Amino acid sequence: MSEHVFYSWSAQAELNPITVAGALGSWFWDDTGKRYLDFSSQLVNVNIGHQHPDIIAAIVEQAQILTTISPTVANDKRSELATMIAERAPGDLNRVFFTTGGAEAVEHAVRLARQHTGRTKMLAAYRSYHGGTGVAIGLTGEPRRWGTEPTNVDVVRFFGPYPYRSPWETTSPEEETAAALKHLEMVIQLEGAQNIAGLILESVIGTNGVLIPPPGYLAGVRELCTRYGIVYIADEVMVGFGRIGEWFACQAWDVEPDLITFAKGVNSGYVPLGGVVISEKIAQQFDHTPYPGGLTYSGHVLGCAAGVASINVFERDGILKHVRSVGEDVLGAGLSKLGESHPSVGEVRGKGFFWAVELVKDPQTREPLTPFAATGADNAAMAEVTKAAKSRGLWPFVAGNRLQIAPPLTTSEDEIRQGLEILDEVLDVADSLMR
Amino acid sequence: MSEHVFYSWSAQAELNPITVAGALGSWFWDDTGKRYLDFSSQLVNVNIGHQHPDIIAAIVEQAQILTTISPTVANDKRSELATMIAERAPGDLNRVFFTTGGAEAVEHAVRLARQHTGRTKMLAAYRSYHGGTGVAIGLTGEPRRWGTEPTNVDVVRFFGPYPYRSPWETTSPEEETAAALKHLEMVIQLEGAQNIAGLILESVIGTNGVLIPPPGYLAGVRELCTRYGIVYIADEVMVGFGRIGEWFACQAWDVEPDLITFAKGVNSGYVPLGGVVISEKIAQQFDHTPYPGGLTYSGHVLGCAAGVASINVFERDGILKHVRSVGEDVLGAGLSKLGESHPSVGEVRGKGFFWAVELVKDPQTREPLTPFAATGADNAAMAEVTKAAKSRGLWPFVAGNRLQIAPPLTTSEDEIRQGLEILDEVLDVADSLMR
Ligand SMILES: Cc1ncc(COP(=O)(O)O)c(C=O)c1O
Ligand SMILES: Cc1ncc(COP(=O)(O)O)c(C=O)c1O
Repeated sequence: MSEHVFYSWSAQAELNPITVAGALGSWFWDDTGKRYLDFSSQLVNVNIGHQHPDIIAAIVEQAQILTTISPTVANDKRSELATMIAERAPGDLNRVFFTTGGAEAVEHAVRLARQHTGRTKMLAAYRSYHGGTGVAIGLTGEPRRWGTEPTNVDVVRFFGPYPYRSPWETTSPEEETAAALKHLEMVIQLEGAQNIAGLILESVIGTNGVLIPPPGYLAGVRELCTRYGIVYIADEVMVGFGRIGEWFACQAWDVEPDLITFAKGVNSGYVPLGGVVISEKIAQQFDHTPYPGGLTYSGHVLGCAAGVASINVFERDGILKHVRSVGEDVLGAGLSKLGESHPSVGEVRGKGFFWAVELVKDPQTREPLTPFAATGADNAAMAEVTKAAKSRGLWPFVAGNRLQIAPPLTTSEDEIRQGLEILDEVLDVADSLMR
Repeated sequence: MSEHVFYSWSAQAELNPITVAGALGSWFWDDTGKRYLDFSSQLVNVNIGHQHPDIIAAIVEQAQILTTISPTVANDKRSELATMIAERAPGDLNRVFFTTGGAEAVEHAVRLARQHTGRTKMLAAYRSYHGGTGVAIGLTGEPRRWGTEPTNVDVVRFFGPYPYRSPWETTSPEEETAAALKHLEMVIQLEGAQNIAGLILESVIGTNGVLIPPPGYLAGVRELCTRYGIVYIADEVMVGFGRIGEWFACQAWDVEPDLITFAKGVNSGYVPLGGVVISEKIAQQFDHTPYPGGLTYSGHVLGCAAGVASINVFERDGILKHVRSVGEDVLGAGLSKLGESHPSVGEVRGKGFFWAVELVKDPQTREPLTPFAATGADNAAMAEVTKAAKSRGLWPFVAGNRLQIAPPLTTSEDEIRQGLEILDEVLDVADSLMR
């Protein structure tokens, strides 16, 4: 660790990070040789696994030809990746604006929505994360935004469905959908549809709980946006590109947003890349009017080459299918079974290779094992759970009171079973921390 | 060109970009084999030249080991680059927060300034560009911000020095400095120093004119910021890492900001990378309080490896020295000579490998060849000048009414002379467009 690196979201003097020396597939290791089974895909981005030989080969090959060129010119790889993404995106979402990551994708999606409607107000969900830059952090509906407020981005927050902790005390997913849509329409009416540019929603709420939308919810959101002339932005930075077994997560519910933001899984972050997929209707508005936005590394050639290679491997190796079957039959089934035998597990929920194990002090009251709070607040219990996992060689993605399980999509059944065995022990530790 | 790529800052249907197929050193070529001498370094980022063999080798080598890992852990390359940057940065600017580009660097610098002071108001210059994301575009003081306004970022704009078009009608650089500092102090007083978090200023104004600060200006800004407790952010995304012959441009004037933003030249954009260099005083505030900001690709390993290799090549090959001597003696001297023989040249100014040739309709009135306006406005004359350059195989960086000359820092004397010869012809075209 270097005293010269300033770390994200952290108290610098309280860090004691491991030093990662190498990685392969679903594993990485530190400089002492200790190996970790990666059940986080890092920040849920290394979808294809670490150091995949085909992606590395593509990077090496492209590096010999051309790493970067101005976004004002055309380039093969940039065009090829845009075409591949357009082919896989739903409906008429045919044009791709490339960025270097998720926050910037969100920034440009919002700009497009505001330009398209001539309005500024944005609807965004509580319990959401949209990124760390000006507009993206303003849309974010979780504690990480608190350190930056007031953000003045003209955002209105709504509650999304969360059956386990229903804002409306519903008792079934169907009721939750109905209540959530009624709530959303009420917010739209009270804010004035004519003032609302767009609505941004993670197709599956990621960091804030792996909240799978209950039946009919996304379709209902689509319908409300259409009816009220609101641009529907699906933020798929975390759940796009295979995480739940679909190219775009919204496709699991047959829903077609107006804009989709992506990053992470598009090339597993081997080279920073993100972007917005844009519907023809919105894109055409900029046929003869300049789009007022850009960045130096839009359409980065090396990043696009990694993206092309990654999509090709997904196709060749049937990764989406692997995620759907192993995700439900082995990972999901295994976690649900663990949930039954560990009283600290309040709920297990998820889809594909993305699951949350929500830990509680008391399954009756559902009081979370640690309070909903910003980074650095009291989270001693979750810190101990995390430590129990890491010391046993399992690297989890921890958010709030949840172990979020997000292995690389190439993780084998065997490796998943290994991870589940370790989790069984880790949940013993969680059980011991209930009161 | 793919119809699926959505381009920055452009009317999509009016584009007809060349397709770049490859590049080497100061040259790149399109898919028809036409070669261009790169006098732009693309968007002033390919400082080390295209496809530099040592940087490519470093990328290839690192790609075999580890391309990416979560920003929450430590990694050799990340630490090594942070250390190298800290060693070269002025004074106690010892900590580095990494981003993937310039706009995000600005976002985090502003967050640090606001956190440090507990205030929100930001001072920013007219004729500046700070990036395309929420806060960064709000600070920007040129037409590209218009499409996103209102940005609501609590910004107050001031005028910086610009002797050729002095806001105060001064007649010498010294007078300009005095007038600009008096103006700035007046703005600070009228806004209330106690309300101002930070001041952001490009050490050399880049896209908006290669405006070299007149003697004493940056030192005066530093002194005002210190006196009024304002965090001084030097935005060196475009001019850091060698562009004017210094690691950090502020070092040419012996000035020590509190925060420096960088990107582009740090690794020439072979892999997207940027960041903020942070003074100890500001960084220490986050020793035991979490810093409220982050991004998935902070400290991207492949990007950092390219940065380490690039700094090593700069040192080994004496690139800063090359920039200082060839920049003044060949490039600067040659451009000044062209200026004398072409009536359309209002002023030639610059430093190192960064120069502006400001084109006017009339050298007496100094009326610009095209009006100050947003992308897509009437710029027929500059479009013709640009075309004249490109058709002759010279790729310029064009901004407003200026040809901005920014070759890769590894460009040889010979290549610079070739470019100057072409520019001579291009300026004949400019002369023909005066009225
Ligand atoms: C849904 C969502 N949107 C946006 C972002 C921001 O992406 P980045 O960190 O690449 O800026 C994230 C990051 O986790 C995310 O999960
Ligand atoms: C001075 C300055 N700051 C910030 C930026 C934004 O950098 P990026 O395009 O990498 O976001 C630029 C880009 O040209 C710049 O010149």
